[in-house]
Amino acid sequence: MMLQLPRPYLLFLGATTNPVLAKTALGLKDWAGPDCVAQWCLPGGTVNTGLPEMRPAEAHAAGARSIVIGVAPVGGKLQPDWVEPLVEALEAGLDIVSGMHDRLESSLRIAETAARLGRRLINVRTPAPPAANGTGDKRTGKRLLTVGTDCALGKKYTALVLTRAFRARGVPADFRATGQTGIMIAGEGVPLDSVVADFLSGYAEALSPDAAPDHWDVIEGQGSLFHPAYAAVTLGLVHGSQPDVMVLCHEPGRMHIDGVEGYPIPSLSEAITDYVRAARLTNKAARVAGISLNTSALDEAGARAVLAVATAETGLPAADPIRGLGLEALVDACLAG
Amino acid sequence: MMLQLPRPYLLFLGATTNPVLAKTALGLKDWAGPDCVAQWCLPGGTVNTGLPEMRPAEAHAAGARSIVIGVAPVGGKLQPDWVEPLVEALEAGLDIVSGMHDRLESSLRIAETAARLGRRLINVRTPAPPAANGTGDKRTGKRLLTVGTDCALGKKYTALVLTRAFRARGVPADFRATGQTGIMIAGEGVPLDSVVADFLSGYAEALSPDAAPDHWDVIEGQGSLFHPAYAAVTLGLVHGSQPDVMVLCHEPGRMHIDGVEGYPIPSLSEAITDYVRAARLTNKAARVAGISLNTSALDEAGARAVLAVATAETGLPAADPIRGLGLEALVDACLAG
Repeated sequence: MMLQLPRPYLLFLGATTNPVLAKTALGLKDWAGPDCVAQWCLPGGTVNTGLPEMRPAEAHAAGARSIVIGVAPVGGKLQPDWVEPLVEALEAGLDIVSGMHDRLESSLRIAETAARLGRRLINVRTPAPPAANGTGDKRTGKRLLTVGTDCALGKKYTALVLTRAFRARGVPADFRATGQTGIMIAGEGVPLDSVVADFLSGYAEALSPDAAPDHWDVIEGQGSLFHPAYAAVTLGLVHGSQPDVMVLCHEPGRMHIDGVEGYPIPSLSEAITDYVRAARLTNKAARVAGISLNTSALDEAGARAVLAVATAETGLPAADPIRGLGLEALVDACLAG
Repeated sequence: MMLQLPRPYLLFLGATTNPVLAKTALGLKDWAGPDCVAQWCLPGGTVNTGLPEMRPAEAHAAGARSIVIGVAPVGGKLQPDWVEPLVEALEAGLDIVSGMHDRLESSLRIAETAARLGRRLINVRTPAPPAANGTGDKRTGKRLLTVGTDCALGKKYTALVLTRAFRARGVPADFRATGQTGIMIAGEGVPLDSVVADFLSGYAEALSPDAAPDHWDVIEGQGSLFHPAYAAVTLGLVHGSQPDVMVLCHEPGRMHIDGVEGYPIPSLSEAITDYVRAARLTNKAARVAGISLNTSALDEAGARAVLAVATAETGLPAADPIRGLGLEALVDACLAG
């Protein structure tokens, strides 16, 4: 499960115009900022991390040691128009770090260039041995899992913020990464969507092993029980994590599952019911302690309003952890009971 | 997705004493009987398929062209004490067909022997390209999925019997295999528990493509929503299958999930509620049409009694398809509406 990635990074954005697809780059900028030297956006791209724009040779001169694929194309495929830019990065002295399903070696040109120059091709999604079936056995220590009404609305960020907030109160806590960006931030983890399906729960169990009774593993959620493509991964993570506490992540105003026609976002109450029902298979005490809203599309008054609405609907504290609104009450609720 | 397996088979049973673990061999005997020449049980084993006992050389002389691993060890691992028997089979002229997670090539001795003799090592679980994410899009034609309160209680058999019964009524129907034994019987299918987790629903969608409006795909279920290790695979199959009809498989008297301590079998009513709730994410019309009970531990009077109890509890027809009890009423209910 351990990976050692060559840092600092040049963040590769392709020609992406959709910030949702660039969550890897944006997450690294926010959570591993000191390790990010620059971004590289191809012509036509509009996503901006706020980092200086550099091509590989300039980034290498500024200290970069690897180029990270900072965008997640649908299906995780290597895009044909990325091959020459990535070859340019190899020529400039950078290794390549990728969270795509497609291995970097699937491009013969990339594979041959890396071999010729002695560069490393690091596929973060490559499943980590050893694989094992889940057991359902109870483990010691406490666990928090972030869950969502959809994908890509703040489950990783919420887990990262809560980990920091727990530690700030003197509560021992570790962030447990389950996706490629989280693994790049934490330096270790399990790329849960790329493991063999039969071992989903087993890997999720291995991710948060027995720990001291007062220790919290704060686990990065994946997917959504309401997503027709990814609910299975979500359920395996819920069952294997055996969460004592879940925090439900949601984006007010998002009406449909992102990128899938005909699938509405559930209400907060429906989502709480279904997640608790699922989690109680492996932990009878599982509960949703609060709501994490992604209010990035709203001004502060709007954010406060939707937080109040969420609390009124669910009776639970609601926070926007990125914005810092309501965070202490959410932490109180997670640690209570 | 297509596999062509060398037939007929010698069924390898290892030293197994638990018939549940030998479901591959027992299923092949029942559903591909003419293709099964003999069984081979190692010292200490007690499972009996009813086929003559032969060692590889004798089976080869009797016509066998491959030896099939007929037992499913926990975790799908190649057992160390199987290596020499499998080498003996290769030496006798047989190819090897395996549904284990471990590839046969994981034994250097087996790999080298096969290479030296020009024999084929066929790993039925090897995931089938192309991989794709699920879309949730509605497909034409009708679909039936068998689901269960647990693993290993008759989901494959029920699907096979219903396929035959549909065809006997002139209803066009195809059995769709999702596990290694089903694939060996059908000659094609998707080994669903061995695909990359992210593609679970996508593979399940590909398994039953668009079809004529009156055509039924009868899909072999996997795992159980109530199993702490395998519920994720089950959910991906439910979502990707988009079943119009589900048949709930159950073994009366089984009180706990097989091989997992502390996990009770749900009531039929609870199971129906949860499966319908899960299936309606991708098919709002999904319903459970009836119950399939595995009454193999009971005499006929006992079997009739538990079928009556199941109908009283659920209001649905209950059948034991293997025994032929109640089958026509179950078929009526599946095809109605």
